[in-house]
Amino acid sequence: MSGAVVRTIARTPPAELAPLAERGVATVHEAIGRTGLMHAYMRPIYRGASIAGNAVTVTVPPGDNTMIHVAVELMQEGDVLVVVPTSPCEDGYFGDLLGGSLKARGVQGLIIEAGVRDVRTLKEMSFPVWSKAIFAQGTVKETLGDVNVPVVCAGQRVEPGDAIVADDDGVLVVPRARVAEALAASAARIEKETKNRARFAAGEVGLDVYGMREKLAAKGLKYYEDARAFAEGRSS
Amino acid sequence: MSGAVVRTIARTPPAELAPLAERGVATVHEAIGRTGLMHAYMRPIYRGASIAGNAVTVTVPPGDNTMIHVAVELMQEGDVLVVVPTSPCEDGYFGDLLGGSLKARGVQGLIIEAGVRDVRTLKEMSFPVWSKAIFAQGTVKETLGDVNVPVVCAGQRVEPGDAIVADDDGVLVVPRARVAEALAASAARIEKETKNRARFAAGEVGLDVYGMREKLAAKGLKYYEDARAFAEGRSS
Amino acid sequence: MSGAVVRTIARTPPAELAPLAERGVATVHEAIGRTGLMHAYMRPIYRGASIAGNAVTVTVPPGDNTMIHVAVELMQEGDVLVVVPTSPCEDGYFGDLLGGSLKARGVQGLIIEAGVRDVRTLKEMSFPVWSKAIFAQGTVKETLGDVNVPVVCAGQRVEPGDAIVADDDGVLVVPRARVAEALAASAARIEKETKNRARFAAGEVGLDVYGMREKLAAKGLKYYEDARAFAEGRSS
Amino acid sequence: MSGAVVRTIARTPPAELAPLAERGVATVHEAIGRTGLMHAYMRPIYRGASIAGNAVTVTVPPGDNTMIHVAVELMQEGDVLVVVPTSPCEDGYFGDLLGGSLKARGVQGLIIEAGVRDVRTLKEMSFPVWSKAIFAQGTVKETLGDVNVPVVCAGQRVEPGDAIVADDDGVLVVPRARVAEALAASAARIEKETKNRARFAAGEVGLDVYGMREKLAAKGLKYYEDARAFAEGRSS
Amino acid sequence: MSGAVVRTIARTPPAELAPLAERGVATVHEAIGRTGLMHAYMRPIYRGASIAGNAVTVTVPPGDNTMIHVAVELMQEGDVLVVVPTSPCEDGYFGDLLGGSLKARGVQGLIIEAGVRDVRTLKEMSFPVWSKAIFAQGTVKETLGDVNVPVVCAGQRVEPGDAIVADDDGVLVVPRARVAEALAASAARIEKETKNRARFAAGEVGLDVYGMREKLAAKGLKYYEDARAFAEGRSS
Amino acid sequence: MSGAVVRTIARTPPAELAPLAERGVATVHEAIGRTGLMHAYMRPIYRGASIAGNAVTVTVPPGDNTMIHVAVELMQEGDVLVVVPTSPCEDGYFGDLLGGSLKARGVQGLIIEAGVRDVRTLKEMSFPVWSKAIFAQGTVKETLGDVNVPVVCAGQRVEPGDAIVADDDGVLVVPRARVAEALAASAARIEKETKNRARFAAGEVGLDVYGMREKLAAKGLKYYEDARAFAEGRSS
Repeated sequence: MSGAVVRTIARTPPAELAPLAERGVATVHEAIGRTGLMHAYMRPIYRGASIAGNAVTVTVPPGDNTMIHVAVELMQEGDVLVVVPTSPCEDGYFGDLLGGSLKARGVQGLIIEAGVRDVRTLKEMSFPVWSKAIFAQGTVKETLGDVNVPVVCAGQRVEPGDAIVADDDGVLVVPRARVAEALAASAARIEKETKNRARFAAGEVGLDVYGMREKLAAKGLKYYEDARAFAEGRSS
Repeated sequence: MSGAVVRTIARTPPAELAPLAERGVATVHEAIGRTGLMHAYMRPIYRGASIAGNAVTVTVPPGDNTMIHVAVELMQEGDVLVVVPTSPCEDGYFGDLLGGSLKARGVQGLIIEAGVRDVRTLKEMSFPVWSKAIFAQGTVKETLGDVNVPVVCAGQRVEPGDAIVADDDGVLVVPRARVAEALAASAARIEKETKNRARFAAGEVGLDVYGMREKLAAKGLKYYEDARAFAEGRSS
Repeated sequence: MSGAVVRTIARTPPAELAPLAERGVATVHEAIGRTGLMHAYMRPIYRGASIAGNAVTVTVPPGDNTMIHVAVELMQEGDVLVVVPTSPCEDGYFGDLLGGSLKARGVQGLIIEAGVRDVRTLKEMSFPVWSKAIFAQGTVKETLGDVNVPVVCAGQRVEPGDAIVADDDGVLVVPRARVAEALAASAARIEKETKNRARFAAGEVGLDVYGMREKLAAKGLKYYEDARAFAEGRSS
Repeated sequence: MSGAVVRTIARTPPAELAPLAERGVATVHEAIGRTGLMHAYMRPIYRGASIAGNAVTVTVPPGDNTMIHVAVELMQEGDVLVVVPTSPCEDGYFGDLLGGSLKARGVQGLIIEAGVRDVRTLKEMSFPVWSKAIFAQGTVKETLGDVNVPVVCAGQRVEPGDAIVADDDGVLVVPRARVAEALAASAARIEKETKNRARFAAGEVGLDVYGMREKLAAKGLKYYEDARAFAEGRSS
Repeated sequence: MSGAVVRTIARTPPAELAPLAERGVATVHEAIGRTGLMHAYMRPIYRGASIAGNAVTVTVPPGDNTMIHVAVELMQEGDVLVVVPTSPCEDGYFGDLLGGSLKARGVQGLIIEAGVRDVRTLKEMSFPVWSKAIFAQGTVKETLGDVNVPVVCAGQRVEPGDAIVADDDGVLVVPRARVAEALAASAARIEKETKNRARFAAGEVGLDVYGMREKLAAKGLKYYEDARAFAEGRSS
Repeated sequence: MSGAVVRTIARTPPAELAPLAERGVATVHEAIGRTGLMHAYMRPIYRGASIAGNAVTVTVPPGDNTMIHVAVELMQEGDVLVVVPTSPCEDGYFGDLLGGSLKARGVQGLIIEAGVRDVRTLKEMSFPVWSKAIFAQGTVKETLGDVNVPVVCAGQRVEPGDAIVADDDGVLVVPRARVAEALAASAARIEKETKNRARFAAGEVGLDVYGMREKLAAKGLKYYEDARAFAEGRSS
């Protein structure tokens, strides 16, 4: 199947996705039922960036970034590039030249289950990347992969046009068909969390905020005054 | 033993622990005979924090943070929360709501042999965390663990009320009974290091500062003028 | 062979190496034919430093930093210390006292396939370190190793006097005999990249900048208008 | 979506899959264009087993094997159980009781991106397992997951009813729609390999068997008589 | 505290421990409430051994096996040697000479959170070892550690005289005071498992054996006839 | 430098190397001063093989095994193939066809810092391999590397013609110039170990066999009768 490039994909208007970036990965992930989170080894090359955009997917052979170049001209304002090697590889497929090229097109960032290089310059130009490694080892341009086919990246299925949300907590995939649900549910969740935050700030604890006390007693939670009481089995 | 909560533990007055935070993990660790250091995979979610406090310990089932909520109301000014899963887990047991709740109680920070999330907000509110992972995957509230029982965290035994010292170099456990010794010995060590620092600054080298030359000669250290002399076995 | 110290090594004048630091690891690595790059697990203890210097090599037994002290007085302005344990070890062989001592001698930085500590102070004094770990566990001074013998560090052979280039992308070894070539080739590469950067900035894509289109068509790259066309095998 | 159980899935008749087990993972993987291979960390608990069967998929919360029990009664002769935790977990979700239960139903084996236990007994009863870990830590039965929904296991998408092929080389997913193609292409490949094997046995080398010599010369391959000739650049 | 050797420890008579070896790590671990299991990275150097014995504990500096030699003459029939480095180390502290020496004293085996070598000979002489690594790198005899002090090994606290149970599933610590409980509870568990095994063999499934059906329905488990019904939300 | 093939290398007569295989990696490693041992992650694909031979070295791009085919016809009876990727890669570069081809030429085995496949067949044909991974993912034949140039494999420098010794304990490099020394020193070591083995078998302990008692007392080793004496500081 190598060598296939799909030009046009269905996208969500970038402006609609913006609130997901603001609400963040942890909140949106909870909101859509705890699905779609990439593995914890995907880390930002610098802290503080927060993005949401439409996935353009690329598969690359180990040590060969040909297809990233093929993908560039198909990318649009608000896209996020998702790159997956066909076998595990930590080479630096992407550097500041490609970063500048994508930045100029309004691309939001890069998610790559491999390595990246020129990280200092990428930070200076504010082009965020979430990667598995930072590695200066470059790549060749000899063999083909695919653009805009479904991929698995860091444990999650990504379809071209799915929404990608990424920040300091990690990287999340929201299927395009569930974007509206994610927007609504994360808004509701933010509202609930805001109320809870106020109660916590006022000194309340989670046991009361979440109404856990009775349930815990039913499950057999036992309190002991101190270590001696515990050793002697005198709960109170 | 699951489901036991010990309310009261013996603590060291927080003010007494403060010098340990200032002197730092590396120094205090040397001072108490190189014991109690957690594994190197325990890393701060942001750099620059330095804390010392009394351990409140919590065990949690994989993917379930019920017991952290149970522990909150038992925590006091100057405490450090130590959380250990009963089997290895990288889920994000702790986020900004719990961070705000503990911050409000004067808790110094969190040590967790698992994952944490909302790390950007935790940094903004200056609530430091040392963890094994950063992961947005949340947890449920279904099953019990324990509060204030002895635990093993990242390779070290922690008793409730032990002192925890943590900074950019890692996390250290000082048994409560050895806090006085740690204070005295680390003060002595700081004094010695200060003198040595002055000598190093003046251009002296460790071989003289630590009086190593004779001992090394006795062990058979040999100098060669250059690679050729070395190849020909002509030491000098 | 333990216990050998070679006093004098051939060096490149530090001023000649300076451009390599400025051009960076990724560029110089490409320029010398993609050889000499250390493994990706060698990471800077803080971001933003960029160095190039002459390697002084040290082998150390696990948990023993004697030989680092032996090496100090042999180091000169513009050197880089390269430390390798004789078996894998993550102990903190090096801290702020040694950092200050080397800083005072004009040493550029430390490359260590092991642990380092006092990282906050090392950052404050601007002494950069690339290491495998950050770990407060100190070392003893009991057993011998070697100074200025050839070593393998993080997968790369290092001869005393080889040039070390290090920045946020990693650590590179340039054999002393190839320094002139590295300088010339990296200058050429920078020039070419500068031209390409201008073309990318003007909106051109890599497919044109690198003249890839024809070659890719010959390899069988096929474009499909959309997912439906792709499923039906209608390339366009 | 947690708590959904799909009873009936489309399957390939087990007898049709048998040749895939015999031909092996490496051969079938090549035959279908190098797609579908799980990560190398999925290893057999004992060597020598070789299976092919229809995937029944299960998602499980960390530390909870409820849904494996739910899946058992839906399994048929020739099935393969594929279990994926909703966040990374190495607990021993599966032991000899479940192994015996599945063995009795004619299930071919288990693929689990987590831990397994009772491995000695599982080997004695010839119930093969490919897992990420061997770990005696058991699980609870408190929370829900899903049965027979699409999952990602060790980097590969698995749909219920896809064919799973596993042996000492690893674990492969063949989409149900491509089973016929996999059978035909792997048969062709076996035939070709058998011919090549005979040529290799007769002493021929790959350069001739695969007709590589001319292509390599064109790419610039150069022969040197010995190290001296190489150093002097005298190719021959 | 380095350099302390405690000669005499309280032990359980070896014959009393034998049933624990027979029942196995997974069963005994469940029986004592899922505590005491070492990390999954502790693996047997060969499969099929199953032991239970009294722990003699040793701490060793990185790369130095002096204290193992100190411990040998204190070991008795039925003991298990537990060795922990004071900082992480994979050196081969133990080989066939020490194995033969301990075998001759009736020692059951070795648990070492480090490396071991001569593994082929150790297998031939049936001296089982559970270790973190296999590594031919030997050690020196220069520095002190301790014998028979409490240690933490692979995440678990071990007191001298605690029972160690180890087999193909891993390594378990049973505190000496809980040995009687472990014997009784594991016997009860074996009995229960035997009954369940018969039911499973007769074709029953866990849902019935463990009475899970009602509880699962209450938690909201929903069955769907097939993928289409699931997509349309028609549970049955 | 890619694309260079050196035809002829200096070798040690295979018969001279045979004793190194018999004496084993751990013994020879000690005999030559503990140098040359590859990292512990290099593991045999099956247990029980023990080899010694002359290194033929190959570098390969990630995911491309062209150069292995180039190397085959240059290999002789008693050689060992050493394969190193130019950047980290776990692909299965080598399978049973290449194994049969090398076996037919009298090659002793393969050392590869990458993946291997067809491991069951390789075991059946008794062609031993030490590798970093087992992975069915195959490779292409598109790009060049080198044959018989110096390489670094798993942390050790290997020159073409160096002796490779490998068994269940790992992989060792003996520089060709040190083979005679390795033979003599390992013979002496075997003799010494044989004597020591007899003493151990007769019940002596290492403290006496190695004369350690006095030295340990001088270093401050202290014996305590039991835990109580230790707690009270009463050494005996």
